[in-house]
Amino acid sequence: MDDPVADLDEIRALLAHLPGPDLEAGTAATLRQTQLTKPAGALGRLEELAIWLATWQARHPPRLDHPRTLVFAGNHGVAARGVSAYPAAVTAQMVQNFIAGGAAVNQLCRVLDAGLKVYEMNLDRPTGDIVVEPAMSETECAKAMAYGMMAVEPGIDALALGEMGIGNTTAAAALCAGLFGGAAELWTGPGTGVAGAALEAKQCAVAEAVALHRQAARDPFDMLRRLGGLELAAIAGAVIAGRLGRVPVVLDGFASTAAAAVLYAADRHALDHCVVGHISTEPGHRRLLERIGRRPLLDLGMRLGEASGATLAFAVLKAAVACHNGMATFSEAGVSGPS
Amino acid sequence: MDDPVADLDEIRALLAHLPGPDLEAGTAATLRQTQLTKPAGALGRLEELAIWLATWQARHPPRLDHPRTLVFAGNHGVAARGVSAYPAAVTAQMVQNFIAGGAAVNQLCRVLDAGLKVYEMNLDRPTGDIVVEPAMSETECAKAMAYGMMAVEPGIDALALGEMGIGNTTAAAALCAGLFGGAAELWTGPGTGVAGAALEAKQCAVAEAVALHRQAARDPFDMLRRLGGLELAAIAGAVIAGRLGRVPVVLDGFASTAAAAVLYAADRHALDHCVVGHISTEPGHRRLLERIGRRPLLDLGMRLGEASGATLAFAVLKAAVACHNGMATFSEAGVSGPS
Repeated sequence: MDDPVADLDEIRALLAHLPGPDLEAGTAATLRQTQLTKPAGALGRLEELAIWLATWQARHPPRLDHPRTLVFAGNHGVAARGVSAYPAAVTAQMVQNFIAGGAAVNQLCRVLDAGLKVYEMNLDRPTGDIVVEPAMSETECAKAMAYGMMAVEPGIDALALGEMGIGNTTAAAALCAGLFGGAAELWTGPGTGVAGAALEAKQCAVAEAVALHRQAARDPFDMLRRLGGLELAAIAGAVIAGRLGRVPVVLDGFASTAAAAVLYAADRHALDHCVVGHISTEPGHRRLLERIGRRPLLDLGMRLGEASGATLAFAVLKAAVACHNGMATFSEAGVSGPS
Repeated sequence: MDDPVADLDEIRALLAHLPGPDLEAGTAATLRQTQLTKPAGALGRLEELAIWLATWQARHPPRLDHPRTLVFAGNHGVAARGVSAYPAAVTAQMVQNFIAGGAAVNQLCRVLDAGLKVYEMNLDRPTGDIVVEPAMSETECAKAMAYGMMAVEPGIDALALGEMGIGNTTAAAALCAGLFGGAAELWTGPGTGVAGAALEAKQCAVAEAVALHRQAARDPFDMLRRLGGLELAAIAGAVIAGRLGRVPVVLDGFASTAAAAVLYAADRHALDHCVVGHISTEPGHRRLLERIGRRPLLDLGMRLGEASGATLAFAVLKAAVACHNGMATFSEAGVSGPS
């Protein structure tokens, strides 16, 4: 992780300047949909997605030739409390697995012809233990967000944003409880697979962290700083950069969506350029999607993180673009309309 | 449509000789899943699908290099009653659109790198009007099934089975009511988009057809002959051929699943080598999936037919195979297991 110069107030200020939808591109896409050789609406969400992509790419026709998956990896002080079924060393080991091409997300990127970049964020320096202190200083949080923003390089048609970080469903649960309220046990689930006493201990850690920070946090960004993590801050930054750069975003599971929800809590329209790629079986994800009013694209019982669900959802976006751009119109094909 | 020599009793007899699951391949796949670098179960249905593919391809590792989409097109005598929003001529026009590459399924096959073959089934000779007569003679039904069986060529790793046929949601609704009981209006929906009085007329046509044929039908195959259609019979035949040839099958929407359900009604294990690619918004599809106990892979609000949902579901199968075959094991990657 390089050290970008960043100030959290400057990043906060960006929210007031997010570009809105490109209604011209969206209208052109909507019009074309009415002309394609199918009953109106028969492609369901593929039609909506084509229009949404045009609207937020600000171009018609939309394109999805260069999807990119970003995986941010960070470590969490709270992991030392045994909140995960796996040791914290697995974060770095999995990063090596990503680099070597052996993880699930590598295979999914290959199938979907998506670029993959993995960003290690000071894995040898975990965040503060949120049970007793803020996860990050203002500067650390701002740098992590700026790092995520810089990862959104030019020439990308859509982004899938995911994470790797032992302990980060604990941080995500605390962040959601901090942002939206509700008891810790409503947001806390098995993550990598904790159960019984270990799950109870995880719920206690979340409850204590929320009790310590919720009142003190002055806004959603401060909640992210206190309860989040480096990789979650980077995802929030990448979501902002996607909006600024006209790159639609596909969110992944619980941790990825929780990171983005920080922006939703600050501005109800901050995620209008995002879709949720899939619903995780981590129970907090369903609750979070209800809270932010989102329907996921896929529901396949996945709960792996590492952008796996979001990357697989590129298939749906690619299908939407291919149908939108490639189908013949009724008049081109000489097909009769409704009688 | 060529004229295969076929006898419906010979096809019936095949059901007693369907190969079962290959437990050796399935066990090998199950074992490998426990070793891959992810928490157990974290890839959800992708894990189940990899094991299912190995089991029904009868090989480990499973492969999905050569998926094939088959679209069977037929015309229906009942279409003359105005049960569709589109004129019957659209069936042949859409076949030309498939051939020219302008339909949704063409784009989806391109995105998923799936082969596509379209089979016209005597489009100038619609089936009998099921309200007053059987759709097909025994010989016609047997020939259509044999035609579907012959379409399952060697070298295919998985099949998506779809249809094009103005009027065929009427036939599918009648077939479902015939096979499983229930009032016509429970199985009859808007199809291409009928509503109001036209939808009521469609429901009446279904009710009359079922009243005429249900008691007379001596078994599910005879129900298919009386209430189905050429393209539905071909799909049922292709499902059988897939089983015999160790080619797993992805069913599409209401018409495709209704055709396959004929086999389910005859033998509860006849569809064990099939998955349902998506759930259509055509309301009969949800009811039918409940009746045959199937969860679809995708739920994207689609209702186009032409194998569009099944073809898109190839993305999920490809992802399952890629993760299963390509991921590193814990020991290969040097990643720690649960602590």
